[in-house]
Amino acid sequence: MSLKLYFSPGACSFVAHAALELAGATFEPVLLKLHRGEQRSPEFLALNPHGQVPVLVDGSDAISQIVAIVLHLDQRFPQAQLLPPAGLARTRALEKLLWMNNTVHPTFGRFFAPQKFSDDAACQALIKAHAPGQYRKELAEIEQWVAHKATPWLSGEQPGAVDAYALTLLRWGGLAGIDPQSLPATWALVQDFAALPAVARVIERERLTLNLYQSQS
Amino acid sequence: MSLKLYFSPGACSFVAHAALELAGATFEPVLLKLHRGEQRSPEFLALNPHGQVPVLVDGSDAISQIVAIVLHLDQRFPQAQLLPPAGLARTRALEKLLWMNNTVHPTFGRFFAPQKFSDDAACQALIKAHAPGQYRKELAEIEQWVAHKATPWLSGEQPGAVDAYALTLLRWGGLAGIDPQSLPATWALVQDFAALPAVARVIERERLTLNLYQSQS
Ligand SMILES: N[C@@H](CCC(=O)N[C@@H](CS)C(=O)NCC(=O)O)C(=O)O
Ligand SMILES: N[C@@H](CCC(=O)N[C@@H](CS)C(=O)NCC(=O)O)C(=O)O
Repeated sequence: MSLKLYFSPGACSFVAHAALELAGATFEPVLLKLHRGEQRSPEFLALNPHGQVPVLVDGSDAISQIVAIVLHLDQRFPQAQLLPPAGLARTRALEKLLWMNNTVHPTFGRFFAPQKFSDDAACQALIKAHAPGQYRKELAEIEQWVAHKATPWLSGEQPGAVDAYALTLLRWGGLAGIDPQSLPATWALVQDFAALPAVARVIERERLTLNLYQSQS
Repeated sequence: MSLKLYFSPGACSFVAHAALELAGATFEPVLLKLHRGEQRSPEFLALNPHGQVPVLVDGSDAISQIVAIVLHLDQRFPQAQLLPPAGLARTRALEKLLWMNNTVHPTFGRFFAPQKFSDDAACQALIKAHAPGQYRKELAEIEQWVAHKATPWLSGEQPGAVDAYALTLLRWGGLAGIDPQSLPATWALVQDFAALPAVARVIERERLTLNLYQSQS
C-alpha cells in the first residue's frame, strides 16, 4: 500500500516525518503551507476535519494524531523500533510521548496561538506572556529524562518517536525565548538525532534550522 | 502481579477505572481527594511527579497517562478488547482516544482551571467564559461519531476505553452548562455504558451522578 504524509515544515508533523524515514518507508511527502491556510482547503479537510497536520494516508485511509500515526507505523514497520516492542520499556516510552503530546505541545500552543483561548487582545497578550515560563519547566523535565537515561536514546537502544518529539519541542523553545544551550543534555541529544542520515533527510526536506533562538538574536 | 489504581471520583481517572473493571481485573482502588490536595503529598508525587490521577501501580511500576494505562491494560488483558486488537479499527479507536485526551480534555481544563493560563483574575474569567463554546463544539463532534457509528460501541463490537472517555467528557459538560440531553446520541450511549455491570461498579464506587447539568439547575 502506498504511503503519503501531509506535513508542514517545522510543525509537529516532524515526528511522523522522522518516524517514516527512520522506518525506511517509501512515501510521498506533501508540503502544506499552514501560514497560507492550506490546512483549511476542502481537499485537506476531507482527510482531517480538524485541519491539522500530520496526516498519514495509508492506501485509502487517512490517519491523523501524531501518536496514532506512530503506533500505526510501529505496527507496519516493527523492525524500526520507533517504540520499544513490548513490556515496561514500551509503556515508559508511551508515557513520555503522551505527556509531550497532551501537555507540552499544548503549552507551546498557548504561546503560538493565544487567540484560541480568548477573544480579548489584552488577555491574549497575557496568555502569550505566561506560557514560556511553564514551557521552560516542561522542557526542564525532559532535560532530566535525558540527563538520567540509562540508554543511548530516550526510549532505548534505538532512536525513535520520543527523540523526534524532543527535537520538535526544544526547537520550538527557541521561538519562545528559550536557549537550547540552557538545556545541554537535550540539546546534545537533539543534535545527535538530527545527524542520523534518516533524520538529516527530513531536516533537509523541511529546511529546518535547529537553533531558532540563535537565529533570532 | 498486584494492581492498584489511584483515582479521584469523577476525574479523568474514570477511564482507567472503567478499563480495569471491564477487563475483569482484580485491583485495589485508592481514592485521592484532589480538592484536599492529596495529589501533592510526597508519597503520591513519588508515584507521579506531575501530581495527577490516574496512576496504575502494576507490581513495583507506577504508570501514569490515561492512554498509556489503557495500552498497558490492553497488553495485559487482550481478551477484554479495551481497544480493537489490530488493524485500521485499532488505529481509528486510538485516533479518537488521543483527540479526546490531547484536545477535548484540555479544553475542559481551561474552564476548570483557568488560573493555569494567566495570573490575572480578569483574564482567567475571560478564559473560563470562552471555553464552554469550544467544548460544546468538540462534544458535538463526538455526537456525530456516535450518531454515525456502524457498531454498537464507539470503537467496535465491545464497550471499551473510547466509550469510557465519552462518558467522562459528556459528564463534565454538565458543569460547563451543557445539557447532555442536547447531545442525545452520546447521552444514550453513555447511559447504556453506565448500565453495564462492570461500569456500574465504578459509578457506585465513585458515587457519580451522570447528569450534572440536571443536578445543578
Ligand atoms: N492533536 C494533534 C495536534 C496536531 C497539531 O497541533 N498540528 C498543528 C501543527 S503543530 C497544525 O496543523 N496547526 C494548524 C492549525 O491549527 O491551523 C496531534 O497530536 O497530531
Ligand atoms: N495527561 C494526563 C492528565 C491527567 C489529569 O488531567 N488529571 C487530573 C484529573 S482529570 C488531575 O489529577 N488533576 C489534579 C491536579 O492537576 O492537581 C493523562 O492523560 O492522564
